Amino acid sequence: MEINEYQYPFLRACRRQETPYTPIWLMRQAGRYMKEYRVLRRRYSFLEMCRNPELAAQVTLQPIEKFKLDAAIIFSDILIPLEPMGVKFEFAKGEGPVFHHPLRERTEVEKLRNIEPEEDVPYLMRAIQIVKKELGGKIPLIGFCGAPFTLASYIIEGGHSKNYILTKSLMYQDRPTWDILMKKISEVLIRYLKAQIRSGVQALQMFDSWAGCLSPPDYEEYVLPYSKKVIEGVDKKVPLIHFATSSSTLLKLMRRAGGDVIGVDWRIPIREAWEHIGYDVAIQGNLDPVILFSPIRLIKREVKRILDSVEGRPGHIFNLGHGILPNTPVDHVAALVDMVHEYSSSTHKPNRPPNPQTFDDFSFG
Amino acid sequence: MEINEYQYPFLRACRRQETPYTPIWLMRQAGRYMKEYRVLRRRYSFLEMCRNPELAAQVTLQPIEKFKLDAAIIFSDILIPLEPMGVKFEFAKGEGPVFHHPLRERTEVEKLRNIEPEEDVPYLMRAIQIVKKELGGKIPLIGFCGAPFTLASYIIEGGHSKNYILTKSLMYQDRPTWDILMKKISEVLIRYLKAQIRSGVQALQMFDSWAGCLSPPDYEEYVLPYSKKVIEGVDKKVPLIHFATSSSTLLKLMRRAGGDVIGVDWRIPIREAWEHIGYDVAIQGNLDPVILFSPIRLIKREVKRILDSVEGRPGHIFNLGHGILPNTPVDHVAALVDMVHEYSSSTHKPNRPPNPQTFDDFSFG
Repeated sequence: MEINEYQYPFLRACRRQETPYTPIWLMRQAGRYMKEYRVLRRRYSFLEMCRNPELAAQVTLQPIEKFKLDAAIIFSDILIPLEPMGVKFEFAKGEGPVFHHPLRERTEVEKLRNIEPEEDVPYLMRAIQIVKKELGGKIPLIGFCGAPFTLASYIIEGGHSKNYILTKSLMYQDRPTWDILMKKISEVLIRYLKAQIRSGVQALQMFDSWAGCLSPPDYEEYVLPYSKKVIEGVDKKVPLIHFATSSSTLLKLMRRAGGDVIGVDWRIPIREAWEHIGYDVAIQGNLDPVILFSPIRLIKREVKRILDSVEGRPGHIFNLGHGILPNTPVDHVAALVDMVHEYSSSTHKPNRPPNPQTFDDFSFG
Repeated sequence: MEINEYQYPFLRACRRQETPYTPIWLMRQAGRYMKEYRVLRRRYSFLEMCRNPELAAQVTLQPIEKFKLDAAIIFSDILIPLEPMGVKFEFAKGEGPVFHHPLRERTEVEKLRNIEPEEDVPYLMRAIQIVKKELGGKIPLIGFCGAPFTLASYIIEGGHSKNYILTKSLMYQDRPTWDILMKKISEVLIRYLKAQIRSGVQALQMFDSWAGCLSPPDYEEYVLPYSKKVIEGVDKKVPLIHFATSSSTLLKLMRRAGGDVIGVDWRIPIREAWEHIGYDVAIQGNLDPVILFSPIRLIKREVKRILDSVEGRPGHIFNLGHGILPNTPVDHVAALVDMVHEYSSSTHKPNRPPNPQTFDDFSFG
């Protein structure tokens, strides 16, 4: 039987409701830094793991079994909905995704298909169902997608890009094709997210991983309308986290595009970011993932800095400013989760100021 | 005979003095996008060109002969002072710099030597003298260096880096070694820039290319003091441009570190950046280099947007937000330089508003 979701600190924080402590989850929390994950990866490719519901569910749950995280996020990849649209790709060893036929012509873009998620990516929906059952209502499950700009950049560039010359050139020089592409991706993403909700996810995150390469006027003109379309197209009852890196100057525009929570990286102090976007939206972030390679006392200093700066204000979800890095020490992750809970428990008690002495006395790991 | 340097629009703009038009130069203006450069590069390696004063001078002058640029910048590389310090590197084909023995231990860092620029990099000083002579006072010459953080990151990582894990880990975990390294680099850079001034450069730019990976508190604690040390160590009479990319949230701190001009990328509207850092410092920027791949009318729209937003205020130097990209069409570069001059000539006339009609009627290229 499921707990009333209004009792989950993570979901309450998405709605800026009071919580007994600051909830925490970590981008890429199911991943290469975990031995259990690497063991599976030796036998299966990354895409095989995404496409096998039992494996995807197993990997999703690995960090949940190990750390006291406040949310699980389904193991998958932002590129998954592209294949049923008609865009083929593979993960070349150590190189990230490679698209052998990037699309740059209007006639090619016009051929892209909308998707039927339950039929086209049944393994994802099944994985969500398995995870939900396994979690047994312990913590909520997050679904996700890439944002239209980020997916468009993969389709056009044919993989990761350094300068986004082809993407921006199409955007600037062939506006009709750009608009067709972005509209098609947006429509796919609405169906994709809605299907994840039907399968059981209780929150969503939209990753606009590469939007940080854009100037604010370009983001506003070419990207914002489509991100907004996706966010408005899904159920308002399911909170959505809108995230991008290197996005300090885009935050207000991202907020205009939508989302109940704005995710920020470490390049902007979280207090400044929150003040800037307004306290009528929740915020997620923003520890530099590299800090986790440091000794516990340094991690603790940074965690305190972040938690102190938001002063226990309801609506903060603790996270890294970007995905957790391979080789991150697992015991540091465990310590991070515990220290966020313990330290914030003191700051969240009304009329009781944080007691740094007590906190410093904890020993982790 | 040399023109009084107070007549150069570029140097006047560095000091926020009135100019008849907005001066423009382009980061990496001597580079791969030019056929003349590529012809030479077929015969010589990149480092051979840096180390041969005649070739370096020739390459420096290539864009000056072709475009009406307001400043030349000596052809060299930010890594040049590292070799005489005792750090060896090479440029692997298509991979950027590779250091076979990156330094991460205190004992290694302590062995780094200070340099005698005239003896250790005589070719650079000679190249500056040749260029100065060839320019015959037509436009000023800019010298440059990498900032301490950026150079430290190369020395520690052994090349380009994605996440700067080793650099940040040393910074966080071994503060004494970090401080020794940054102090040594700073001392080298002061000598290196002073020698360039003695050889004849009339302005300087310090590139902190990778500082954008840092949070503002980390920049303030670990980097600012050393960038400041370098800037304070050189002759105040020679204006210095302090530049970094992805630095929108670091701009105030960079300004505190110093510089007569702060260089900004396209991720922040230039007007907002200038307001933020204060009008008592000049600003350089900030066209997205990718725009130069677009048709002239789109380049013109962006140029107008930038020039209109600063309203002809003295102290703006037009530049790209990052180095010019390989394959940039040369006729677009010519058009850019001309349109910045022509359009800004109208906005710089006191009491005469810009006349977009006239500007739109110009035909370029």
